[in-house]
Amino acid sequence: MEIVNLPIGFRFNPTDEELLYYLKKKVWSLPLPANVIPELEAFQFNPWDLPGELKEKRFFFCRRKRDLVSKCSSFSTDCGCWKSRGKAKQIVVAESNRVIGMVKTFGFYQGGKVKTQWIMQELTLVGHLKTPFLNQRLMMRVGNWVVCRLYQRKMRARNHGAAQTTPFLPMSPSSSSSEMTDISPSDLDE
Amino acid sequence: MEIVNLPIGFRFNPTDEELLYYLKKKVWSLPLPANVIPELEAFQFNPWDLPGELKEKRFFFCRRKRDLVSKCSSFSTDCGCWKSRGKAKQIVVAESNRVIGMVKTFGFYQGGKVKTQWIMQELTLVGHLKTPFLNQRLMMRVGNWVVCRLYQRKMRARNHGAAQTTPFLPMSPSSSSSEMTDISPSDLDE
Repeated sequence: MEIVNLPIGFRFNPTDEELLYYLKKKVWSLPLPANVIPELEAFQFNPWDLPGELKEKRFFFCRRKRDLVSKCSSFSTDCGCWKSRGKAKQIVVAESNRVIGMVKTFGFYQGGKVKTQWIMQELTLVGHLKTPFLNQRLMMRVGNWVVCRLYQRKMRARNHGAAQTTPFLPMSPSSSSSEMTDISPSDLDE
Repeated sequence: MEIVNLPIGFRFNPTDEELLYYLKKKVWSLPLPANVIPELEAFQFNPWDLPGELKEKRFFFCRRKRDLVSKCSSFSTDCGCWKSRGKAKQIVVAESNRVIGMVKTFGFYQGGKVKTQWIMQELTLVGHLKTPFLNQRLMMRVGNWVVCRLYQRKMRARNHGAAQTTPFLPMSPSSSSSEMTDISPSDLDE
């Protein structure tokens, strides 16, 4: 399904669980619900060079590298590197308390040292394998694909007064306790 | 435009600026991009009694009460109340540094005292009025509607080990440095 012309405010913003649903389809070579996640070795690129809108969350299917999570924790690009931030965490289905995947977070460091706001999360599917000889179930990574979520960690998006120096003036003494005054749409300088 | 059957992972998740776009249409009685924001006096309800999916962000158009932001800072329901959390903040268009609205945050307190995770944000349009006699521009609230965004403040959604007690066992001594082992999809207990 190709997604075009969604109304304003609608976007692809999947939860971890929904993203793993896409990944599962990818790993099993089944049709995806929508054609919105390109295949790209995202860790080889500077975040601003990856396709898509810089302000939006972006998603990529990447070939899984065996040592990506367990050993290697840094990936160089021409302007810096992606460095691991802590251990992989479990993705759990709340209703069943079942672990369905793992997520590992990387930060982009410009020149290898300067921390930036760019974050890449790498999500991996896990499966459960019965081991009769041990009488327990092992949790293991599944498939040759991972899915990555790229975004910028939020700054204080809302301005606390540094913006445009328009004064907040009450229109009459009776409204002096208010920060702002009321006008009707017809009064507006639109 | 009625929105039905979006593919998994797509949702209405507008930025403040996009939400103000809807509000502007509402205030001016113009067609909305999509019919996704019901009219409801959201502050009169307990958050769990409001329509929509509990886990999703929910949006409501409410009639603006003059004293909502400036004076009154608490709204009672039958199980608690919505209390203001701090002052209203400006919503600024990054490109132009222009203030286009204000957002005020309320928290829901069960029984009036117990802080919950429920948050309601109330967004108001502002306009700019020229005042030749003062030789400056005043910023003022516009219209008889506000738009509210209801959501639950995030808990630590990912489980750090308390979930299902499946052990992470290496399959062979050679992979002992890894937290997990690899299997192919065909090995899976699916």
